[in-house]
Amino acid sequence: MPRFFTDDIHENTARITGDDAVHIGRSLRMRLGDEITLCSGGMEYICKIRSISDKEVLCDVLSSQKTKAEPSIELTLFQAMPKLDKLEFIVQKAVELGVCKIVPVLTERCVSRPDGKSFEKKRARLQKIAEGAAKQSGRGIIPTVTDIISIETAAKQMKECDISLICYEKGGRRLCGDMFSDKKTVALMIGSEGGFSEREVELCKDCGALPIWLGKRILRCETAPIAAVSIIMHLTENM
Amino acid sequence: MPRFFTDDIHENTARITGDDAVHIGRSLRMRLGDEITLCSGGMEYICKIRSISDKEVLCDVLSSQKTKAEPSIELTLFQAMPKLDKLEFIVQKAVELGVCKIVPVLTERCVSRPDGKSFEKKRARLQKIAEGAAKQSGRGIIPTVTDIISIETAAKQMKECDISLICYEKGGRRLCGDMFSDKKTVALMIGSEGGFSEREVELCKDCGALPIWLGKRILRCETAPIAAVSIIMHLTENM
Repeated sequence: MPRFFTDDIHENTARITGDDAVHIGRSLRMRLGDEITLCSGGMEYICKIRSISDKEVLCDVLSSQKTKAEPSIELTLFQAMPKLDKLEFIVQKAVELGVCKIVPVLTERCVSRPDGKSFEKKRARLQKIAEGAAKQSGRGIIPTVTDIISIETAAKQMKECDISLICYEKGGRRLCGDMFSDKKTVALMIGSEGGFSEREVELCKDCGALPIWLGKRILRCETAPIAAVSIIMHLTENM
Repeated sequence: MPRFFTDDIHENTARITGDDAVHIGRSLRMRLGDEITLCSGGMEYICKIRSISDKEVLCDVLSSQKTKAEPSIELTLFQAMPKLDKLEFIVQKAVELGVCKIVPVLTERCVSRPDGKSFEKKRARLQKIAEGAAKQSGRGIIPTVTDIISIETAAKQMKECDISLICYEKGGRRLCGDMFSDKKTVALMIGSEGGFSEREVELCKDCGALPIWLGKRILRCETAPIAAVSIIMHLTENM
């Protein structure tokens, strides 16, 4: 059944506007009475189409349930800026695997250093990729891709999570299930092509982050987040 | 230190020929007396360059050790043929993560269906990608990308491994560490864009394969192998 996100659901009526409305009527050629799944804030609504136009699709909500595909943990990926195509890839895969937020971070060794303004356009594109991946993988939310922030700000934000991890190729603990018992919010920081400086790792450690190590093979900066997110989702029984 | 693969190591003399020889002399501009790491069959040789030409580089072997980055298990990835760019991606990531062989498999629902002859050219390209990934990630072997085989042949080959797993989106066991205790060789089968037919899963089960399940989110066919290989390498303490 086609799957869309909307936040416009009130008293058993759901409304879809914008590109999705056009897509439902024109590309999918859906008709009055057809069923559709709408997602909003981790809930899933089975709906029946009541009216279609290019401007809006109105639906009656038939039933609702918590989206089963949402993981039990809220994992935020703090990703040091790699080249843009790699970030696109990371966003798509991280969303499929269950992260709830992706925060691009500027570190000393980032080769790609967009300023806030030039990143804004890119952010819109990355958010579209996140939405596509959320629809395709059956997520109950559209994970957010935030603005780019400094590692100092990132370290402070990570502190807010129940557990905070930084992947460090020079060593750290192996990921293990015990790290996550009774933890709801998880922060994971991954480096860019050049990794982190020692100062940056110390900064994160001072904010409570635990260095973790992904083993002896040198992983590319786009492989490390996918591997780490997969392992964390497995250790927390979300995979 | 630059890292190359060669099988031509005899009595403390190592020889590199072909493109790598040209690369060492011209691109890297290495000189007599420079040190270089050579890999062969899971061993790592620290060598000193004795002579350089475009045809061959001769080296004295100074010391040798088992490559620490090689995993303790031999994991073969049986991958149902996706579109070629996705297979390239899977080969690169699977090699970084530690698989020892990638076997492309033709299944009922493969959209991409190259015949043996047209695949031969592609195989050469995939093997190059495997070699690049092996060098970059510090592997001790160059994993092989084999010819494309039928699922019937694949099921029989999987039987040879100590444990054989097939990812099935309709359900199976979760991956767990116990599956791999005392196991040296592991076969992992992953579907293409359309997944497997029931008949194919039954065929693999008849050959002893255990269906496994990667959770409630629908993973793309290139994400599933990366996630599964990461989790298996973690469960076997190779990551």
